[in-house]
Amino acid sequence: MADTKEKKNVKCSVYIATSADGFIAKPDGDIEWLHRPEYTVDNLEGMSYDEFIATVDGLVMGRHTFEKVLSFGVWPYEGTTVIVLSGSGMEIPDHLAGKARVLSGTPGDIVAQLGEEGYTHLYIDGGNTVQQFLRAGLIDEMTITCIPILLGDGISLFGAIGKEVPLRLIESSSSDNGFVQVRYAID
Amino acid sequence: MADTKEKKNVKCSVYIATSADGFIAKPDGDIEWLHRPEYTVDNLEGMSYDEFIATVDGLVMGRHTFEKVLSFGVWPYEGTTVIVLSGSGMEIPDHLAGKARVLSGTPGDIVAQLGEEGYTHLYIDGGNTVQQFLRAGLIDEMTITCIPILLGDGISLFGAIGKEVPLRLIESSSSDNGFVQVRYAID
Repeated sequence: MADTKEKKNVKCSVYIATSADGFIAKPDGDIEWLHRPEYTVDNLEGMSYDEFIATVDGLVMGRHTFEKVLSFGVWPYEGTTVIVLSGSGMEIPDHLAGKARVLSGTPGDIVAQLGEEGYTHLYIDGGNTVQQFLRAGLIDEMTITCIPILLGDGISLFGAIGKEVPLRLIESSSSDNGFVQVRYAID
Repeated sequence: MADTKEKKNVKCSVYIATSADGFIAKPDGDIEWLHRPEYTVDNLEGMSYDEFIATVDGLVMGRHTFEKVLSFGVWPYEGTTVIVLSGSGMEIPDHLAGKARVLSGTPGDIVAQLGEEGYTHLYIDGGNTVQQFLRAGLIDEMTITCIPILLGDGISLFGAIGKEVPLRLIESSSSDNGFVQVRYAID
């Protein structure tokens, strides 16, 4: 039981948007639908991404999410170290030296190692990675913004993680563009 | 194009509870988890089931949902005609004569026939039936109550309906037990 929450001193949080049918991306990984003109709004209620990321000192993602981010051409995580989970010795591009690193191991191993290095709050991102960390009982908080659309198909946020996890609602809010944000703690 | 909303004069609504990971029942159809003691609360915000059902004159469900309801031993839909969708000529038990009936056909056929009979507001229930009616473009409104739990596996509310459907948020509310209710229109 290396993967129990009692033993860790690092908070692990999820901050993510999903369609109302639970997809975080289209089947090909596309997330452009999140930025449609009809979602433009003066004020977004709830916790903004900027507020959230300011509390984070490490961002943990899988290789697929990392490769998706690289395809953007712009590095959006300046100031936050990105930890890419990969068992197969992938290489970080030179221009990201010092900004991103690769780790392998179980979610428990990863959290233990980063805790020893002094990390205090990890942002766990990407459907597959979130599911692994949930299964390992390592997620403390989830902020989920529900977009008013059924995508019909895509990459699931939760899928079938095969384990029951009680949640505690911390707060919920809605914005004029129809976004509903819920924040849950996992105690 | 018999299945377009323009041609119908019957409103079709969904009123359902899901886990935060989008399941309406456990894999075996069990919905007992909805009634756990920790969800007891003095006041539920949003639209109550009683308020909703009072506006409905027909409840459309699939055979599986109907058989699940029969297994309860008590008929919970007194006052609302239940329409069971089945292509294979199932029989309604004698004690439900006049309370439940069987229809077969496409969602568009069902809605057209019930509209001709004078129905004005249909409650579309059960994951499979909801998905069929969404695919056919026949759902006007959905009230979804999100329960603060990841079930980990089960029967999906939406699954992958294979079609994009924009939603319009009408309202959202949360209750002290952590339930978050959202109401969407499909225009």
